Amino acid sequence: MGLIVQKFGGTSVGSVERILKVAEKIIETKIQGNDVVVVVSAMGKSTDVLVDLAKQLSDDPPDREMDMLLTTGEQVSIALLAMALQSKGYPAVSLTGWQAGIVTESIHTKARIEQIDNSKIMNHLQKGRIVIVAGFQGVTAHGEITTLGRGGSDTTAVALAASLKADLCEIYTDVVGVFSADPRVVPTARKLAEISFDEMLELARLGAGVLHPRAVDCAKKYKVRLTVRSSFTDEEGTTIREETKMEKGSAVCGVAHNNNVAKITVKNMPNQVHAFSSLLTVLAKSYINVDDIIQSSYESSLTNISFSLSEDDLKRTLKVLKANKTRLAFEEVIAEVGLAKVSVVGTGMLTNSEGVMSMFKSLASVNIPIKMVSTSEIKVSCIIPADMTEAAVRTLHRAFRLDVAEIAVIQG
Amino acid sequence: MGLIVQKFGGTSVGSVERILKVAEKIIETKIQGNDVVVVVSAMGKSTDVLVDLAKQLSDDPPDREMDMLLTTGEQVSIALLAMALQSKGYPAVSLTGWQAGIVTESIHTKARIEQIDNSKIMNHLQKGRIVIVAGFQGVTAHGEITTLGRGGSDTTAVALAASLKADLCEIYTDVVGVFSADPRVVPTARKLAEISFDEMLELARLGAGVLHPRAVDCAKKYKVRLTVRSSFTDEEGTTIREETKMEKGSAVCGVAHNNNVAKITVKNMPNQVHAFSSLLTVLAKSYINVDDIIQSSYESSLTNISFSLSEDDLKRTLKVLKANKTRLAFEEVIAEVGLAKVSVVGTGMLTNSEGVMSMFKSLASVNIPIKMVSTSEIKVSCIIPADMTEAAVRTLHRAFRLDVAEIAVIQG
Repeated sequence: MGLIVQKFGGTSVGSVERILKVAEKIIETKIQGNDVVVVVSAMGKSTDVLVDLAKQLSDDPPDREMDMLLTTGEQVSIALLAMALQSKGYPAVSLTGWQAGIVTESIHTKARIEQIDNSKIMNHLQKGRIVIVAGFQGVTAHGEITTLGRGGSDTTAVALAASLKADLCEIYTDVVGVFSADPRVVPTARKLAEISFDEMLELARLGAGVLHPRAVDCAKKYKVRLTVRSSFTDEEGTTIREETKMEKGSAVCGVAHNNNVAKITVKNMPNQVHAFSSLLTVLAKSYINVDDIIQSSYESSLTNISFSLSEDDLKRTLKVLKANKTRLAFEEVIAEVGLAKVSVVGTGMLTNSEGVMSMFKSLASVNIPIKMVSTSEIKVSCIIPADMTEAAVRTLHRAFRLDVAEIAVIQG
Repeated sequence: MGLIVQKFGGTSVGSVERILKVAEKIIETKIQGNDVVVVVSAMGKSTDVLVDLAKQLSDDPPDREMDMLLTTGEQVSIALLAMALQSKGYPAVSLTGWQAGIVTESIHTKARIEQIDNSKIMNHLQKGRIVIVAGFQGVTAHGEITTLGRGGSDTTAVALAASLKADLCEIYTDVVGVFSADPRVVPTARKLAEISFDEMLELARLGAGVLHPRAVDCAKKYKVRLTVRSSFTDEEGTTIREETKMEKGSAVCGVAHNNNVAKITVKNMPNQVHAFSSLLTVLAKSYINVDDIIQSSYESSLTNISFSLSEDDLKRTLKVLKANKTRLAFEEVIAEVGLAKVSVVGTGMLTNSEGVMSMFKSLASVNIPIKMVSTSEIKVSCIIPADMTEAAVRTLHRAFRLDVAEIAVIQG
């Protein structure tokens, strides 16, 4: 007996048949005596269809109207799922983001949740209903419809679990759990039974694609017990929690990669104290997330700043930089696309310098050039050419012996 | 210079190309110096696609969830149209029903508008924006999403025009105006330049299909100047207004028909004073609209009540009657389908008894049996077998000389 939040992604609700299957999973949980709140994404490729319509009308559709357009996708899913549950005899009610009380900041296409007024959800739960909430969407204090950006449905689920003090948040997806590497790239990749929030955060942020990093971050902050599992099998998934069985300081849990990377170099800015922060302020004001940043000076008066970012943001970023050319006083901007980021993640990655060296050596052994490097407490990332990603991931997965042990111990 | 409300139906926004055409029409009106509020329906067949999905999940999908599902259709249209306008350089903003302040009663699938808080629309207009509002939808005082039923977008447009005190409400559709009969059935049918609210109301209610009767009713009540015209041509449409050039008491303006008619006979109810009202109360509580009603008694203690209704409501009505069998104490219910209603409409129809006789004689002359008759101040309707509709409409159109004169004078 408890309160469980279940999230089903677009593939899980991609057809009428799959929606009926999802309804059965939900009913199973309900029959076990739990209250259930369900978060769903838009059906399969329906978001792509809508994006395509928008692109036919405008090269650069306004963000506000994109949110208006795309939020219909989840609204279709919640209505259909509620119908499926009711047709099986279980009272259910669907709620859009604004109806569920999900209030976000006033930014379109990538808003963050500010607060959740869960009174409507609680009221329906008290009446014994299964509550279906549209993922990915919210509303500003002024009644504008917003979206949370890619993977936002995960964030909706975790935020609701936090707000409702749920006993468990289950993320149902099209994979059986979190793997030591992408199984499509590395056939010997192994499913992890447990992983810490921090490690999951790095894996998520670095493109493991199973869970949205903001969702993991939110789960960590509010101590939400989180599992990732498949909606197509009954196999146990991966549990993400604060404490894991791993011995801290000695383990690597996985290799992540992300092929959607671009690099921008802003050349010959005046080498002043504020150069760096001026640039970042301009980008931040346009809600552009930069990833790794390198500053290099070739002569005393001028400096170059390079940063990596999502290729999706490239066009907009170049536009913003162009508009601020006079203000930032740089000479030119060079953009590089076709890049990827590979990362080795584990609590022990940085406390053991052999780990870092081992990573560089492995990549060098197969002639993969490293364009940028960044590190955190629990990961090391290298930017490499995108066409070398698969070779890099396979090499690193083998080098760190992730294919032979649940938790590989760094050789050192 | 003024404020114009324009409504575009589903066919008018059925594709990206058509949305761009609609945007041009709107911009024309804007360039002439008008403020413009636009109401749009769901794109082409998109509503049918959604209904089909629902039917796959449930024989009788819950009304609340149907509203949740179907309102996404207009939300897609408003976003795309706003994008089209912005891509052509005109500031535009889309609003869902709830954002536009359209508050309805707490009934799903056929709610009536209770009030409109137009402050958000006014605010956007004052900033020079074209405001695009989702037709067909509203929100209850408790934040539940509702729809206004078939043709509800017309009602949205007229209600907004009334609330905003617009100078004109233009209903753009796929026909060039209101005709003396359905041109697909009667090739000699003529377009009417003007028509009174009352006549339009009868034509609309009787199935002319061009304008939703509630929209006409609302226009009449709030004296909204209304025109119906084609979104595909520049041809002038039909103006609907209080005063027309017609000489009252002598004219017939059109022949309407509706093939979607069923008849129910409730047999052998106790012949008491309350029998009639008990039955109608039961139906009204389930929001079933009955059309014509006939009560007939064959013996003193028992009575039969027959009524016609939309075939769409037949299934639900039979369910409601079954559930109330004991309470209403009838013996059995007989349902008849495959019926149609043909009506001759005109301000002079009933003040000239020759008109009524002429209608019956014409139908008899081509051997069409009349199953029920109903009359109002400005029309006479006959229920006939649906497979005889076309013959009936053609015969009546000719008999009342609607093919040779803009306004036919009844022969008498």
